[in-house]
Amino acid sequence: MNLLLLEPEEASGGEVVLHGARARHVREVLRLDVGDGLRVGVVDGPTGTAEVLQVGPDAVRLALRLGTARPPRPRVDLVLALPRPKVLKRLYAPLAALGVGRLHLTNAAKVERYYFDSHALAPAVIRERLLEGMAQARDPRLPKVEVHRSLRALVEDHLDPVYPEAKRLLADPVYARRASRAAAAVGPGRRVLLALGPEGGWTAFERDLFERHGFVGVGLGPRTLRSDTAAVALLAIVHEALEP
Amino acid sequence: MNLLLLEPEEASGGEVVLHGARARHVREVLRLDVGDGLRVGVVDGPTGTAEVLQVGPDAVRLALRLGTARPPRPRVDLVLALPRPKVLKRLYAPLAALGVGRLHLTNAAKVERYYFDSHALAPAVIRERLLEGMAQARDPRLPKVEVHRSLRALVEDHLDPVYPEAKRLLADPVYARRASRAAAAVGPGRRVLLALGPEGGWTAFERDLFERHGFVGVGLGPRTLRSDTAAVALLAIVHEALEP
Repeated sequence: MNLLLLEPEEASGGEVVLHGARARHVREVLRLDVGDGLRVGVVDGPTGTAEVLQVGPDAVRLALRLGTARPPRPRVDLVLALPRPKVLKRLYAPLAALGVGRLHLTNAAKVERYYFDSHALAPAVIRERLLEGMAQARDPRLPKVEVHRSLRALVEDHLDPVYPEAKRLLADPVYARRASRAAAAVGPGRRVLLALGPEGGWTAFERDLFERHGFVGVGLGPRTLRSDTAAVALLAIVHEALEP
Repeated sequence: MNLLLLEPEEASGGEVVLHGARARHVREVLRLDVGDGLRVGVVDGPTGTAEVLQVGPDAVRLALRLGTARPPRPRVDLVLALPRPKVLKRLYAPLAALGVGRLHLTNAAKVERYYFDSHALAPAVIRERLLEGMAQARDPRLPKVEVHRSLRALVEDHLDPVYPEAKRLLADPVYARRASRAAAAVGPGRRVLLALGPEGGWTAFERDLFERHGFVGVGLGPRTLRSDTAAVALLAIVHEALEP
């Protein structure tokens, strides 16, 4: 944990009392004592520092010094064909750590219907895993997660009002254009909306749907990756290419 | 499985009889029948195609048409501080899929000693997981895995004869130079030797040791990643940047 995350209601005063896992983390992993400092962030709020005021067996009391501005949302949003529940659970933290503004989990031809009934889509599970990645990467911005049962409705109706200006990239092994080249050509400050398919890729019908809605196809070269590896690789490559 | 992998001794004749998991895969996942074709590769040998000659309840017989050249080894070799056993087991397949020539698993100040006694270093475990990644990425080249109990001996004595000419990159959050920039500047055909630290990073002493032996420090930007995410992200970024 590189950033101690606080809920907005905890951070409204100048002090906070931690219990449970976060108190144990400060005491036993960070091994902080009275007078020590640590980095803190408010979920979807500002970051700052805290000073340890008191360390007890059940609780840790901190004085907060928070900034006023909240950090910008990561520049990349992701449309991701819903992965297998076990894979999805493991992906939330790395995606949040790499940086994603919005995560649209969507149906696709090669997505199994039962994935939608999984525990991996329970809001508490999603939030816990995302917070883990945010704490790792020191980013207090909580990715917004949406679940879409119709890819067509997502692409035809939902995306345009939310992403009027983002550069739209569609990742699939059929495309020769490299993802890094396409992302490097995106102007400064412009957001990127990246769509990544299921195990086995998007179908021709799906690729056509995306292309008719402004998505430009990109690939990752000749090596076909498992969808979870591809998600991490692609997000890393696009962020790296967006850096000035 | 995008490439059916055969052992060299199986592929010495013009035909092969598969049993067990590979036979089931051909029958039940690929759902191939007599006359159908599939891609095959010989471990550390050539790739080619096979035609299904016979499909039985216990066995599948294939006729092989193999090329003569074996594909080149991936251009990146990796020095990786030994991760936790559970993390390491999950990393072999993605690393092999992304492409790594040699994998040097090494001790470091922040590596726990008991990691070296783990089942995750058993040759059969390593090989099975690597083959999974190779089959995924259609690469028959088996990464060579070495375990080093002394980082100092590895860097001072072992690397020079093996890597007389490779570009050496040391990844750590302390460095500002972007990994993609450093990799993009590597001349065509030249190999890259990439060193990635443990959870918590290399120590100053270790960074100094690497730097004295020709390693150039690179980072992945301000977001600190968990070491398994960093390994996948970094390998993906370096491969992408090496592409012409």
